[in-house]
Amino acid sequence: MAKIGFIGLGNMGGPMAANLIKAGHQVTVFDLSEVALNTLSQLGAHVAQDISQCAINQDITISMLPAGKHVKSVYLGETGLINHLPKASLVIDCSTIDAATAKAVGSELSAAGICFVDAPVSGGVAGATNGTLTFIVGGSADDFERAQVILADMGKNIFHAGETGAGQVAKICNNMLLSILMAGTSEALQMGIDNGLDPKVLSEIMLQSSGRNWTLELYNPCPDVLPNVPSSNNYQGGFMVDLMAKDLGLAIEAAVQSQSATPMGSLAKNMYNLMQNQGMGGQDFSAIFKLFSKQG
Amino acid sequence: MAKIGFIGLGNMGGPMAANLIKAGHQVTVFDLSEVALNTLSQLGAHVAQDISQCAINQDITISMLPAGKHVKSVYLGETGLINHLPKASLVIDCSTIDAATAKAVGSELSAAGICFVDAPVSGGVAGATNGTLTFIVGGSADDFERAQVILADMGKNIFHAGETGAGQVAKICNNMLLSILMAGTSEALQMGIDNGLDPKVLSEIMLQSSGRNWTLELYNPCPDVLPNVPSSNNYQGGFMVDLMAKDLGLAIEAAVQSQSATPMGSLAKNMYNLMQNQGMGGQDFSAIFKLFSKQG
Amino acid sequence: MAKIGFIGLGNMGGPMAANLIKAGHQVTVFDLSEVALNTLSQLGAHVAQDISQCAINQDITISMLPAGKHVKSVYLGETGLINHLPKASLVIDCSTIDAATAKAVGSELSAAGICFVDAPVSGGVAGATNGTLTFIVGGSADDFERAQVILADMGKNIFHAGETGAGQVAKICNNMLLSILMAGTSEALQMGIDNGLDPKVLSEIMLQSSGRNWTLELYNPCPDVLPNVPSSNNYQGGFMVDLMAKDLGLAIEAAVQSQSATPMGSLAKNMYNLMQNQGMGGQDFSAIFKLFSKQG
Amino acid sequence: MAKIGFIGLGNMGGPMAANLIKAGHQVTVFDLSEVALNTLSQLGAHVAQDISQCAINQDITISMLPAGKHVKSVYLGETGLINHLPKASLVIDCSTIDAATAKAVGSELSAAGICFVDAPVSGGVAGATNGTLTFIVGGSADDFERAQVILADMGKNIFHAGETGAGQVAKICNNMLLSILMAGTSEALQMGIDNGLDPKVLSEIMLQSSGRNWTLELYNPCPDVLPNVPSSNNYQGGFMVDLMAKDLGLAIEAAVQSQSATPMGSLAKNMYNLMQNQGMGGQDFSAIFKLFSKQG
Repeated sequence: MAKIGFIGLGNMGGPMAANLIKAGHQVTVFDLSEVALNTLSQLGAHVAQDISQCAINQDITISMLPAGKHVKSVYLGETGLINHLPKASLVIDCSTIDAATAKAVGSELSAAGICFVDAPVSGGVAGATNGTLTFIVGGSADDFERAQVILADMGKNIFHAGETGAGQVAKICNNMLLSILMAGTSEALQMGIDNGLDPKVLSEIMLQSSGRNWTLELYNPCPDVLPNVPSSNNYQGGFMVDLMAKDLGLAIEAAVQSQSATPMGSLAKNMYNLMQNQGMGGQDFSAIFKLFSKQG
Repeated sequence: MAKIGFIGLGNMGGPMAANLIKAGHQVTVFDLSEVALNTLSQLGAHVAQDISQCAINQDITISMLPAGKHVKSVYLGETGLINHLPKASLVIDCSTIDAATAKAVGSELSAAGICFVDAPVSGGVAGATNGTLTFIVGGSADDFERAQVILADMGKNIFHAGETGAGQVAKICNNMLLSILMAGTSEALQMGIDNGLDPKVLSEIMLQSSGRNWTLELYNPCPDVLPNVPSSNNYQGGFMVDLMAKDLGLAIEAAVQSQSATPMGSLAKNMYNLMQNQGMGGQDFSAIFKLFSKQG
Repeated sequence: MAKIGFIGLGNMGGPMAANLIKAGHQVTVFDLSEVALNTLSQLGAHVAQDISQCAINQDITISMLPAGKHVKSVYLGETGLINHLPKASLVIDCSTIDAATAKAVGSELSAAGICFVDAPVSGGVAGATNGTLTFIVGGSADDFERAQVILADMGKNIFHAGETGAGQVAKICNNMLLSILMAGTSEALQMGIDNGLDPKVLSEIMLQSSGRNWTLELYNPCPDVLPNVPSSNNYQGGFMVDLMAKDLGLAIEAAVQSQSATPMGSLAKNMYNLMQNQGMGGQDFSAIFKLFSKQG
Repeated sequence: MAKIGFIGLGNMGGPMAANLIKAGHQVTVFDLSEVALNTLSQLGAHVAQDISQCAINQDITISMLPAGKHVKSVYLGETGLINHLPKASLVIDCSTIDAATAKAVGSELSAAGICFVDAPVSGGVAGATNGTLTFIVGGSADDFERAQVILADMGKNIFHAGETGAGQVAKICNNMLLSILMAGTSEALQMGIDNGLDPKVLSEIMLQSSGRNWTLELYNPCPDVLPNVPSSNNYQGGFMVDLMAKDLGLAIEAAVQSQSATPMGSLAKNMYNLMQNQGMGGQDFSAIFKLFSKQG
């Protein structure tokens, strides 16, 4: 079992840290929220008095933070953990951030003799709680192997995408594609409805044809086609529009940097912005179906 | 076994008629091409001296024609088969045409006491030859059951989409969605490549994640990720850009008629037009990947 | 002065016919609405007992109808005016319809010795009332000259776009471009606002720079930048979203027929459909600005 | 007359500095290129031995650099000009960079008692040479007035867009809109051509109608409609695709930061990327017309 420092106990980080404790690791946690710290403390975590205790004497330090600037600030700079992390310890950053920042942090830590992988997750709060998250990891083969053992206590599928930063790239490629699948499936279903088809019948046909995709299989955006999905629950729960818009923002920024043409992903990004403009940011991302449906 | 008239012996119609003969039906064929007629004759077809012989005394008449105007002209009007088809015989139109024409033809035939289903196919020349086509059928439940028996001799999956015209609608919804999957998968893969990822690794990750879709599974547009797909064969074979552009044209016209918003499908349609402008109309539709790749 | 039959006395046709009467022409009118007929009668029009009286003994027949099917039905077929129009009389169809129907009607009339121009208008109800409409005319040079004299009594700018049907084509090209200018100007202004700029200042800068366009000059979509435009009047009046969506539908159908790539126009068309879905069909088309603005 | 330091003597910066010398200012220049320095030296510039001489004892320092990182590096940091610029001197950065960097540099300089405006230009090499550039300026009213006097020696139109950074924002809003006008005008013209219209006639009609915009007036993308524009010269000269793609990249990044929806601008950005993929980066940006034209 490992000695692990865990930074960031939000909706995702909290249950992830809990699963590490459950797996028998010795976990030291840090967060700005007293409530979050208390919750983890009751589950058996050591509460760090200072963020540096998540680095000092730890085998592994894991972070789950909102944006690239937080990750940079936690690890680098004068007061950063780079000054406290033991040589050869491993940092696993599970935040979803831009690949450029992931590479920069990885490179500076590496120069200081510290190992680093970026390991953004998917699977949502339910996945974090049930320990069924997917991790997409960027880093060397050795660091990946070392991270994999720990990540397996929090998730089910653990992919090695390539070198440092590759985890972030693969995740935004996947999520950009997901947004395209969701938008495309929504408009195809609504066009069928507008022309007299039953969306259940059309969904079934496309699922067995070349229109098959993850959203048709598991996350149909049209209400009452599938049970137990957000569209059948008034678009509550699931993966929020605001979070999809954030990931699409990261994707589009990466595309600008690499001069990649991403017309479909850009269009999806803008439709999610239109939804935010209409106050739909807190609904599940399958609510894009409502843009296409004829209301009233 | 049935007495079947078959009109239209092109790349698709020819092998479809051949499979009906092979299944033991008594098939009378018509086409403007002598070569096509000879081929089918050698396989055992009766060659109609006149198109009306594909209707007179037949149980079933099947047509496989390029566009709505041909279907209209064959069945309706002064010299149309409507004047020759026996009462209660069944017309199966396998052409991919606009739903409005399918409905109009079905409605006039029905008024004359003749049964009708629209049954557009997918699966390409290989599916036609091997008898593994997919048929998406629109018509009454009774007519569907009657058609299903015959279609089973030419295909594997036979779906009942709804009333007359619904086959055409479901097919264009599916193919519009397919074009979106193909375009979206292509740009996601290329963005990964532009940011240092291996397309095989990225494909594998997305296939096991929420980016999963039919094109990633069976028709990866990036060369050399999957064997035996058009992208690994210089984009030869498969489903041509010109045919996808035709289907997208039908989809967009339907969307205009039903005032449906189809932003992703419209964008895909326009990208396929851009490819036609560049002389890529004869390549497989997965060649949209080349729009995104950085050449030279 | 000419003897003119006028068919279709709606919001546009009514004031157009009134201007012909005012100019001294002898005008015979037909419509299905008794109210519309009475209004024109009081202004001096002869009321036709039957639509054929708008053709018999007239020099010129003008029509202003909602869609291609109405135009086809009025002129062609067994009971159509083609059987009543004097040889060498001139038909001016001012309806905005698809170019294919305009060409078909023109061609059949021409074969019967009757002259035809398509002359769709822009300028709205205000232009119709004030006699300041723009006409975009398709037809032979001779027919154009003959039409121009009459059109000058209802409008200010009269363009000769080319052969029969060219008036319709030029109008939808212009209106498609207009929708692009409106959408593009709206999103550019809102992006400026989102980044701290004053929309009046930004409008002024772009108006004097390479962003200059008709909407910035005369029809700014951002409230309170220009006085006396719909955006400064809660998006009331002007050119309705539903009408723009109709014109964009005609444009996109034409693009499908000619296999033209129109990615920007297609996107604009779909955004106007999104607005219709949200119940904004009756607002001025500059209300597309509201899609981009951050409400609440 | 002022003492001016000028940094960056490329295609734009060189002739701009020359115009300042011509106007009688005492200009000290710096660049990494010996050739550029020699050219300016022969025109009367002092050649700085070290970049700091462009700051020390100067009234005004002007920079014209490729990207935000160069601007940041020149002014800030340990070896930056912030250590050499006299109190109350004025920095005018004419580079086109992201607004965030402009604000950051302005803010740090301001804290050190140095005045700053961002003043990106448009008008191209011809405008730089002829002293007819347009400057869009962000900064305080006082700093704007002070900058205006100097900028008037290099340009004709000088706009005050708002506070620091506003010059950059207004420029990318304008250029994003310009790209939309160019793409939209191109596809509208080609659709007219595809439907039988003469592009000169269609251009003339739209120019007098609601499709009017800067590109139709001065920069028609269809060959041989206007003389002396890049489209009539094989798309040589003018404003390169690569530069438009760069500006659109800045626009889209700003839109991501401000969560602005920019569907039309995003689509234009991606079409310019497609052109770069096809090796058209060095052609004039009106070459987007070629994407739509039917070749061969």
